[in-house]
Amino acid sequence: MSGNLLYAQSGGMTAVINTSACGVIEAARTQASPYSGVFAARNGLLGVLEESLYDLMTWTDEQIASLRYRPGGVFGSCRLDLDPFETHQYQYTRVFEVFAAHDIRGFIYNGGGGSMLTAWRMAQAASACGYPLSVIGVPKTIDNDLYATDTSPGFGSAAKYLAVSIREAAMDVAAMCATSTQVFLLEVMGRHSGWLAAAAGLAEQNPGELPLLLLFAEIPFDVEHFLAAVRDRIRQVGYCVIVVSEGLRERNSSLLKEHSTAGVTPALADLLTRTLDLHVHWAVADYLQRSARHLASRIDVEQAYAVGRTAVELAAQGRTGVMVTLQRLTDHPYCWRTGSVSLMEVADRERLLPLEFIDVENFRLTDAARKYLQPLIQGEDHPPFISGLPAAEALPLRLRRRRLSAWDGWQDLSWFHRT
Amino acid sequence: MSGNLLYAQSGGMTAVINTSACGVIEAARTQASPYSGVFAARNGLLGVLEESLYDLMTWTDEQIASLRYRPGGVFGSCRLDLDPFETHQYQYTRVFEVFAAHDIRGFIYNGGGGSMLTAWRMAQAASACGYPLSVIGVPKTIDNDLYATDTSPGFGSAAKYLAVSIREAAMDVAAMCATSTQVFLLEVMGRHSGWLAAAAGLAEQNPGELPLLLLFAEIPFDVEHFLAAVRDRIRQVGYCVIVVSEGLRERNSSLLKEHSTAGVTPALADLLTRTLDLHVHWAVADYLQRSARHLASRIDVEQAYAVGRTAVELAAQGRTGVMVTLQRLTDHPYCWRTGSVSLMEVADRERLLPLEFIDVENFRLTDAARKYLQPLIQGEDHPPFISGLPAAEALPLRLRRRRLSAWDGWQDLSWFHRT
Repeated sequence: MSGNLLYAQSGGMTAVINTSACGVIEAARTQASPYSGVFAARNGLLGVLEESLYDLMTWTDEQIASLRYRPGGVFGSCRLDLDPFETHQYQYTRVFEVFAAHDIRGFIYNGGGGSMLTAWRMAQAASACGYPLSVIGVPKTIDNDLYATDTSPGFGSAAKYLAVSIREAAMDVAAMCATSTQVFLLEVMGRHSGWLAAAAGLAEQNPGELPLLLLFAEIPFDVEHFLAAVRDRIRQVGYCVIVVSEGLRERNSSLLKEHSTAGVTPALADLLTRTLDLHVHWAVADYLQRSARHLASRIDVEQAYAVGRTAVELAAQGRTGVMVTLQRLTDHPYCWRTGSVSLMEVADRERLLPLEFIDVENFRLTDAARKYLQPLIQGEDHPPFISGLPAAEALPLRLRRRRLSAWDGWQDLSWFHRT
Repeated sequence: MSGNLLYAQSGGMTAVINTSACGVIEAARTQASPYSGVFAARNGLLGVLEESLYDLMTWTDEQIASLRYRPGGVFGSCRLDLDPFETHQYQYTRVFEVFAAHDIRGFIYNGGGGSMLTAWRMAQAASACGYPLSVIGVPKTIDNDLYATDTSPGFGSAAKYLAVSIREAAMDVAAMCATSTQVFLLEVMGRHSGWLAAAAGLAEQNPGELPLLLLFAEIPFDVEHFLAAVRDRIRQVGYCVIVVSEGLRERNSSLLKEHSTAGVTPALADLLTRTLDLHVHWAVADYLQRSARHLASRIDVEQAYAVGRTAVELAAQGRTGVMVTLQRLTDHPYCWRTGSVSLMEVADRERLLPLEFIDVENFRLTDAARKYLQPLIQGEDHPPFISGLPAAEALPLRLRRRRLSAWDGWQDLSWFHRT
């Protein structure tokens, strides 16, 4: 096989998406690689359609290696899906024109469930059009909602960020609660899913160590049950720390909706002040939880790198229409390896937080949840710092010369609706 | 001299308050120390009045050394001030009864400007009552508003946390802005002062590197000027990152007040969505910015430790009524030493952010600000982690036996009003 390999990022950033890029590019640049060139699309699928491709063959080994620790997404990403081949063939025609113009024979797509649908469609379309192409998906999402993989790179680091932040904040509040703040609330991402709220429950080294209440998107909010639990923790240890899924829903009241312009957390803070006369502070983590490369989980970094490398190996073997997976062999010690699954199995499906992970009565994690989650935050991978800040030296991001004329097929492309 | 030394924490936590405790206790436990015992008050002044004193002589050297990296405030703190001696002599009578019962001859008080007023009053009262006591203040505040010291331990680490977080979030947004989030807002602490907003400006390694807008509590918010700047950054690079002091005030509108229940940042986000049709995300850092020991500045850790040690040296010399200061010798390289100043000079005074640090026109830092601030975030001091979390093993927090009967003088004690 000859030809070139193209890598593209899709959807929201994670702390380790560049680490997967590093795995892909290092594997594609080895002597053993069948690819003569490796490129990255600028802003993901957008760059494919625009024919904006970065040439990575001119980079030094050190520059490629630096991708392992770089924050953000070096090549840019987008929220764009391809529509079904049957109804929108012109989109695929454009993709394969661009691929042919640059002799792209392998396409590595790094994203979540929606992106895996696009990858699956592209693999099917290539086959239908007779364009020789290996399409390999690389999992990535802080939401941990991808099917058929033990976890998705990005989740472990977000989990570690939240667990560490809650642990530090809990110790702060514990020291002050005698005369000051008694409750600290942290809003975490998750519109439909409590995966990240569950992750914050790892703030406890040992179960029961902290007066922690987890409010999951899956469990309708019951105000009386909640207030009783807060009252109980305050009576027992003088403070409590509450983690709130942004998508928290109400069972039988509209307490939170009344304050909906600013989200659920200020409303909960207000509720606690008004009804229990507590001294409350609140924070909203938002992008901080997904961009905090400085606090990445080492396991997550290793897995992000491994799925990138494996993707190239699969492409080089001529495989197509598959996503790289992570397979858990044992919990303790945590042993894992990479595998693969048909993209059809994972495309646009959502893996839910198992209900047996939630101790609804006590607003806590179950033992089953800890057994699954704890391995994912193990180890640190401190990035290099320069003058007090995470290193991010300039990279030679040069686009390849365009060979095609501009595309005008944008009008009815699908865009993701999630942010 | 003989007798014992008592250490107490006051006011809000910082990432490095335990580091100062480590400096105090290690200095007081050396062979050369004149003190036969060293104790820490539980919950600061509250523990002094309650006669709740932890005995630190039974701790191992390793346990004491671990204070250097522990999150939170190990001994607890409080928001409590002593009232003037002239009008509330009974408060001081109680303090000196407790001190006499435990042979306390040195008192190290670790806090901010309000706490330094209490320390000053205590030093004066001891002299008036003929109680032999050295009272030494140790600076601590993330607000950087203490007088007569180059900086206050805690600020440098909060500054580093904000600078790193903004840098990472900016790289996230940069990668997504073509099709998704264009603006990220982060609310930082500072009701009256923009010290922490200024610190977030250090997210740029080089001035002008990021499309960053800083909204300082000192500069009345001008909505048209602000919207023009956002529009400009979006046009130039496609995104912008905005840091907002929680105490931002309006000049000539009530745009922000209308949404005041949840604070200024959701209101700003809403403004940008409504008027410029931008895709906006926002976060509120709150306690995360002061408790993030995992991202402490090494300079800050070194200074926090040094001011603790110096306090014990001054007490051992029989000094009283002084606060330890940090003196800057040179900016680059940053050279500093500890010094001292009369508590009267710093008590209850507020050091303002110099207006020459603010580039009002461009919502940026000036060169003078960077020259002052940059040294304070240099270096890392990663704490040890155990099983993926910052280490915080149990400590032998045992109270000394009480020798006095309970105190009933609580009714008209002053409490801080800040949180």
